[in-house]
Amino acid sequence: MAPYRAPRRDMAFVIHDLLRATDHYRQMPVFAEIDAGLLDQTIDGATRFAETVIAPLNAIGDEQGCRLVNGQVQTPTGFADAYRQYVHGGWPTLGCSTAHGGQGFPALAHTAIVELLCGANQSWTMFPILSHGVYKIVSQHASPALQAAWLPAIVDGTATTTMLLTEAHCGSDLGLLRSTASPAPERDLPDTPAYRLRGSKIFISSADHDWTDNIVHMVLARLPDAPPGVRGISLFLVPKRLPDGTVNGLTVTHVEHKMGLRGSATCSVTLDGAVGWLVGQPHQGLAAMFILMNEARLNVGVQAIAVAQGAYDAALAYARERLQMRPSSGARRPDLPADPIIHHADVRRMLLTQKARIEGGRMLGYWMSLCSDLESHHPDETERRDAADLLALLTPVTKAFLSDKAFDDANLALQVLGGHGYLRDHGIEQRVRDVRIAQIYEGTNGVQARDLLGRKILGDGGAKLGKLMRRIRDFLATQARVEAMAPFTRPVAALADQYEQTLRDIVAAQSRHRDASDAAAHDMLQALGHLCFGYLFAQAAALALPKADAPDPFHASKLETARHYLTQLLPQADAHLAAARSAAIAPVALDEARLFG
Amino acid sequence: MAPYRAPRRDMAFVIHDLLRATDHYRQMPVFAEIDAGLLDQTIDGATRFAETVIAPLNAIGDEQGCRLVNGQVQTPTGFADAYRQYVHGGWPTLGCSTAHGGQGFPALAHTAIVELLCGANQSWTMFPILSHGVYKIVSQHASPALQAAWLPAIVDGTATTTMLLTEAHCGSDLGLLRSTASPAPERDLPDTPAYRLRGSKIFISSADHDWTDNIVHMVLARLPDAPPGVRGISLFLVPKRLPDGTVNGLTVTHVEHKMGLRGSATCSVTLDGAVGWLVGQPHQGLAAMFILMNEARLNVGVQAIAVAQGAYDAALAYARERLQMRPSSGARRPDLPADPIIHHADVRRMLLTQKARIEGGRMLGYWMSLCSDLESHHPDETERRDAADLLALLTPVTKAFLSDKAFDDANLALQVLGGHGYLRDHGIEQRVRDVRIAQIYEGTNGVQARDLLGRKILGDGGAKLGKLMRRIRDFLATQARVEAMAPFTRPVAALADQYEQTLRDIVAAQSRHRDASDAAAHDMLQALGHLCFGYLFAQAAALALPKADAPDPFHASKLETARHYLTQLLPQADAHLAAARSAAIAPVALDEARLFG
Repeated sequence: MAPYRAPRRDMAFVIHDLLRATDHYRQMPVFAEIDAGLLDQTIDGATRFAETVIAPLNAIGDEQGCRLVNGQVQTPTGFADAYRQYVHGGWPTLGCSTAHGGQGFPALAHTAIVELLCGANQSWTMFPILSHGVYKIVSQHASPALQAAWLPAIVDGTATTTMLLTEAHCGSDLGLLRSTASPAPERDLPDTPAYRLRGSKIFISSADHDWTDNIVHMVLARLPDAPPGVRGISLFLVPKRLPDGTVNGLTVTHVEHKMGLRGSATCSVTLDGAVGWLVGQPHQGLAAMFILMNEARLNVGVQAIAVAQGAYDAALAYARERLQMRPSSGARRPDLPADPIIHHADVRRMLLTQKARIEGGRMLGYWMSLCSDLESHHPDETERRDAADLLALLTPVTKAFLSDKAFDDANLALQVLGGHGYLRDHGIEQRVRDVRIAQIYEGTNGVQARDLLGRKILGDGGAKLGKLMRRIRDFLATQARVEAMAPFTRPVAALADQYEQTLRDIVAAQSRHRDASDAAAHDMLQALGHLCFGYLFAQAAALALPKADAPDPFHASKLETARHYLTQLLPQADAHLAAARSAAIAPVALDEARLFG
Repeated sequence: MAPYRAPRRDMAFVIHDLLRATDHYRQMPVFAEIDAGLLDQTIDGATRFAETVIAPLNAIGDEQGCRLVNGQVQTPTGFADAYRQYVHGGWPTLGCSTAHGGQGFPALAHTAIVELLCGANQSWTMFPILSHGVYKIVSQHASPALQAAWLPAIVDGTATTTMLLTEAHCGSDLGLLRSTASPAPERDLPDTPAYRLRGSKIFISSADHDWTDNIVHMVLARLPDAPPGVRGISLFLVPKRLPDGTVNGLTVTHVEHKMGLRGSATCSVTLDGAVGWLVGQPHQGLAAMFILMNEARLNVGVQAIAVAQGAYDAALAYARERLQMRPSSGARRPDLPADPIIHHADVRRMLLTQKARIEGGRMLGYWMSLCSDLESHHPDETERRDAADLLALLTPVTKAFLSDKAFDDANLALQVLGGHGYLRDHGIEQRVRDVRIAQIYEGTNGVQARDLLGRKILGDGGAKLGKLMRRIRDFLATQARVEAMAPFTRPVAALADQYEQTLRDIVAAQSRHRDASDAAAHDMLQALGHLCFGYLFAQAAALALPKADAPDPFHASKLETARHYLTQLLPQADAHLAAARSAAIAPVALDEARLFG
């Protein structure tokens, strides 16, 4: 396995050339000092950490896994030490506000660093990855006393964080949640009631480890007077160790054996009277938790392309070395017994497909991250609202489309190596196993599709989608007179029209059958993912065109990648729209016993 | 993990209703006694063996893997004993001619049994799966003395078999093969020269085990006077143990650690003067080996859907039990806290997609197997030639399209279980890891695509493809007046026309750029796979339509499955044709250093 090398050049292209991020930050007082130099310098530092400290631990983590020994999780060799270096480097503080002792960097910087860490070692990154979201929940929703007690450790990384949502009988359907909280007035803070929590949780990433003394768990449970369903769920902060040093009533009972992500501890947890404090309002825990969840969903998309990038890099290196056969058009390297397989058209297809979808994913993921900065900090209210709408609309697309494609891409990378890719030695098969979880956790991709079509698109009569469409058409209009851009803009314009037409068909079908939109949701998400990638690649092509003949091949490659996406992959959107139309018009009505024979 | 249950009902539908296999066998003297009762009884016996003997060893095989101890491969607990039962049941003799002590069953029976064994335990089945192909090579190409010495053990299973093709530097490109054979006259048989073989081979499935005393290896190597390239490769029979009982000079040096298929021993082998006998003509080893390879490629396709079927069955069972949320159209089971997820439109989509592609794969794989019977044994020469042409054309499609879709389907099954699917406990993730190899071995799917478009389609000016198209259009014509069949036939007719149009575009492009067909090959294979599935599902619909209201839900389910395929999945073919057209018209011309930046 080739050592991990961060895709710094393309990251810089997206941040500076495509998004012009610092132009936006200049308009936002809170980020006024974030110039391009500071941003790049920070990302460079994270690159060194990712490449040299945690990337070498990626295979070890997979081999050793996490083990439960006397109720304590033992992480793979080197993981704890790497975290000490991470804390020492100040990385946990990066995205936290200076008011809380943080460095005040924008979300986009955090996203770039998530990509670097996950590209180097997805399992290791599972341990610190939630802390920024927990920081946001606690700093926005916890009482002053609770913040005073716990925020410093979250910010500086002396405590890691988790979220305890899932129970054995409820994953996607949190309304079924059973864990309970009963008052524990002896532990009340001056401004915050305390509770004792009881219940069993599963699929808890990093519920325990041997890294830090304390862990801050965010737990969903029901108060005694809670109404049933999702409107009766409250959020609690439950530390591993109480302020007086005693161990809280939270026990890890099991560490899962998983397909991949084996260096990450996925735990079953029992709450047996664990002390916790209410965060935010009673019964409104889900809304607070969704601050974290929405950030986590973006992170999952970016994480997935990061893992795929590592697989792609290994496949590209292999394709340049491996000699097999000649292209039909004749030998490229007659001096060798066969040609490097990169010269075979089908290998190029596989590599360009990976490259295009990873770069498309980076453009979409980073753009959404910039939108979250704009939503939170732009001085202009319209800018904030537009960014919030785009972010809400495209968060499920970013999570699901990027993770679906990243899994396919890691598999294409494996395929480039043939039988060698199937061996553990090359490390690509680990990336395939690792990245598979991204289609599942933080809301399965089916849940994302239902969220997109049911809530985000149809829920406001298409208003948010309309904003995206206007933005796309405004850009296409700017390119209307550039003849060389026509191959890049025409297919995007056609797809935008077809998408809206299909949506009208679904709305009509929905009035006859209320399952119509659920039946079409998956395909409508996929088609919207293609539309976004097409739009972003058209922008990338506009930037690359004037520089395509430069000696540096970056822009020539970008242009060819955009062409590959628009001619080879974008046509898949039509198949998704066709499927969505027929699924919506004729949702399967057969009784399930007859349907599945 | 639910225990493996063979899909006997659908197998019977394909064999008897769709293919009407025994009508064909009645016309073939060699199979005159193979009636439906005998066929079903045999498949029932294999079903019992698969379900009760080897299915329970599937997880154990994955857990334990194969180990190399003192140069000997140790297989997982229970594997060797299961093989003794397999031999005792007479299964190795099934497809061998009665003239050689076999039972004389047609290839189709063998294919059905391959499905059963692979569905139960893909790793275990790797050990005996090649023997039928080796039997065919040896019985058709080895000298009488060599046959006398080795055929009985191959037929009755007292020896297992392997093939030694791949070397570290040559996988797809056998022309680079380096292993050598030098004369060893002291070992000559009366009618067959002996050789000593030297070289190193990798990726040798079942090169050693603890099951039988002897193993028959089929080895590709070069004679001293061999011309370079693929026209200088000869085939040798190299036993593990020589007739005098001494151990031959063939050593297993390593057992690979793989993503999946861990119960199968994938070995590196050194030939250090191993004695072998020439099989067939000097320098014509590849042609003989391709007898086995073509059968192996069909087997891989069927194997892949078998593994996907096991995953689908587990997902279906889970979807009927797991309670989460309500469909948008309202509760189906208001008596329960939530609905079984099978009532959610998106879960139905995932399940129906798996079901459709697995059943489509079964129709195609079994049809091809019947074609191999017709090719070998039909009394009419035109029938033989037509069957041979269809088989040659569609072998790469069966291998690649079925394995690609089976991998996607196993992943869809995993997705239905959400986080639970990612755990090792449920067994689906093992099926995902196991089936992944099917896209790679016996010729990567990229090699299949190049074989299809370059050799099988363009190589004879479209003659073989023309035969398929005529057969499709003849069937469509028989349905032209059945109004209820229009939704099933119209999309197939349209796709057939578009396929031929795209092919004309590629031929035109090929005259300008000789890489055009290689660039389009992948997408043309995928589109032809869709066309075949569409054609077969239209046939299945015609059979199911009159029985769709019967109390037994089988035909209602078949009809809905066909509808799902034709409306939801067949549109993907258009996207592939669009991609093929643009890939052929503008193959990427950029120098690779600029292309990949």
